[in-house]
Amino acid sequence: MTTFFPMNGGDGPYSFSKNSQLQREVLDGAKGMVRDAIIQKLDIKIMLSSSNTIRIADFGCSVGPNTFIAMQHVVQALKDKLLQVTNSTNNIPEFQIFFNDHVINDFNTLFRSLPIDRSYYAFGVPGTFHGRLFPSRSIHFAHSSCAIHWLSKIPKELLDEKSPAWNRGSIHYIGTSNVEVVNAYVAQFEKDMEMLLNARAEEIVEGGMMVLVTPFASYTRLMNFFGSSLMDLVNEGTLDESLVDSFNLPMYFPSPEDMTKVVEKNGCFSIERMELTYPKSKLVEEADAKTLMINLRAVLEGLIINHFGSKIAEEACARTILKSEEISTWIKANYEKSCQLFVALKRK
Amino acid sequence: MTTFFPMNGGDGPYSFSKNSQLQREVLDGAKGMVRDAIIQKLDIKIMLSSSNTIRIADFGCSVGPNTFIAMQHVVQALKDKLLQVTNSTNNIPEFQIFFNDHVINDFNTLFRSLPIDRSYYAFGVPGTFHGRLFPSRSIHFAHSSCAIHWLSKIPKELLDEKSPAWNRGSIHYIGTSNVEVVNAYVAQFEKDMEMLLNARAEEIVEGGMMVLVTPFASYTRLMNFFGSSLMDLVNEGTLDESLVDSFNLPMYFPSPEDMTKVVEKNGCFSIERMELTYPKSKLVEEADAKTLMINLRAVLEGLIINHFGSKIAEEACARTILKSEEISTWIKANYEKSCQLFVALKRK
Repeated sequence: MTTFFPMNGGDGPYSFSKNSQLQREVLDGAKGMVRDAIIQKLDIKIMLSSSNTIRIADFGCSVGPNTFIAMQHVVQALKDKLLQVTNSTNNIPEFQIFFNDHVINDFNTLFRSLPIDRSYYAFGVPGTFHGRLFPSRSIHFAHSSCAIHWLSKIPKELLDEKSPAWNRGSIHYIGTSNVEVVNAYVAQFEKDMEMLLNARAEEIVEGGMMVLVTPFASYTRLMNFFGSSLMDLVNEGTLDESLVDSFNLPMYFPSPEDMTKVVEKNGCFSIERMELTYPKSKLVEEADAKTLMINLRAVLEGLIINHFGSKIAEEACARTILKSEEISTWIKANYEKSCQLFVALKRK
Repeated sequence: MTTFFPMNGGDGPYSFSKNSQLQREVLDGAKGMVRDAIIQKLDIKIMLSSSNTIRIADFGCSVGPNTFIAMQHVVQALKDKLLQVTNSTNNIPEFQIFFNDHVINDFNTLFRSLPIDRSYYAFGVPGTFHGRLFPSRSIHFAHSSCAIHWLSKIPKELLDEKSPAWNRGSIHYIGTSNVEVVNAYVAQFEKDMEMLLNARAEEIVEGGMMVLVTPFASYTRLMNFFGSSLMDLVNEGTLDESLVDSFNLPMYFPSPEDMTKVVEKNGCFSIERMELTYPKSKLVEEADAKTLMINLRAVLEGLIINHFGSKIAEEACARTILKSEEISTWIKANYEKSCQLFVALKRK
């Protein structure tokens, strides 16, 4: 069974639209590389094609504002490249931007916050990016930030108490010593990426590009603080341990090797750039645990409510945020710069 | 100032998704004519173009299910036409359907009720159809049912107590004897259609078509029962009359002459068919006043709440529905078949 839990919708205190500074940092960290990919690598011929319309898609856009910032940046880089090549501001093409996320994403909030002064036609595209969303050969530039690490489902071995991959006392593969758990996550990631790359290979025009940005390490470990809050509730006797054992966050943070493997297996894209980067993170440097944890709450709350019910979810989220000082101390002690993976692919 | 009030969203008891039988009848009444327009009039060349993608837009789609029924019907007619011409089921093109409505439309409900087994790629397009929504020359077939009679705003003369067009004691131009009121509505309709046709003339490919279906007479008069409920509240002293005088429904139901005038003024479209039709209406024939009035509530409630506040709106809606017997009697005494205007245009 495949179920999806969107980022918190609306614009309330725990909404994703108000609590996506973390994802904004990932985006900002990749800004220069997205621009370089367009300026240096994108095939200019596809931009000068007869229809005079450039179609761009953001996969896993959520509700904004990050997607609007990213798309404006992509449009600007495309315009700059055109200007460099044609040396003329005539014949600027029209831009069509497709905002994609799951059907249960809060598109109402997304649409109502579209920039008034945008220089593109805006569209919403409901559906999973693990399947087809567009006609063949219709997309010139695809973008996805902080999205492809979401798995389409939890591998069933993790849900079987008798399986060696039963993830006892933990809610993720990060921090576990059980290699079967890690293998199950990797296998699911590979299956999902196979579907994603097959779909995009049909949709992206020859010479078109796709950039993928995904968090890799360090602060993703913060999610385990949610796990420890849940275990606190187990230890106090208000939550059954098997409920924690059977709960697993559906996220896998790929390494460059993971990504290379799936792209090469697909065979339709050349890897133009693949790089782990260490952009500055204000949140991590300042050990701003409260903001970080509220960001994670905006991301995880739907998932947690679905598994544990809203009372336990509320309690676990509130307790985790109360651990701000402990978390800040942990961040300072385990200080690493936040690390993210950038990949630029070109459709062969 | 332009403000918009969508059909009631969600799927509650007064939602548009549960209360759009009236609009369904309009749609069904035009079904054969939409098919005829495609089979007999649409330029087959545009369907066999190189990109192999046919792009269809539904303007003013609201939340479904009517728009899904209409779009499935359009896709089927296009497939049938292709089969007739090419005599082969190979090379069936891909279909892209764009569901358009105002930014404040409930796109979440629309997306969540998209047919699972649809044979097209689905997109949401937020924004007014009185302006540009698509790149130039990108739409092959445009459809709009029960939508173009919505004005972009209320003409300001109607809001000025000193103007001869002050619409005293009435909420619409239908039923009023004040010709200045009617003229103000007509002038606004003409301005709006000028914007709509200018935008579509840019967006629709040469040889592409647009069909417009709009209710014309008879049951539109039912809206005045809302007006009389409001006047009841005035007479009871619970509502200030000037509030009723300054409230005007932003709808104009064009005649064939009105439509011919605006299309000819625009000059970019040929009129392939223009016809007043009298399809069977189960709701009108059965004098099913309660269903009719709940349908109208789903349409008008947002508007009424905005002007009068939710307490008066609730009271006026509840009272109007209580008038079911009186309305049924009126329908029987004034029985006419429901009448609607069908227009098929082709981009020159």
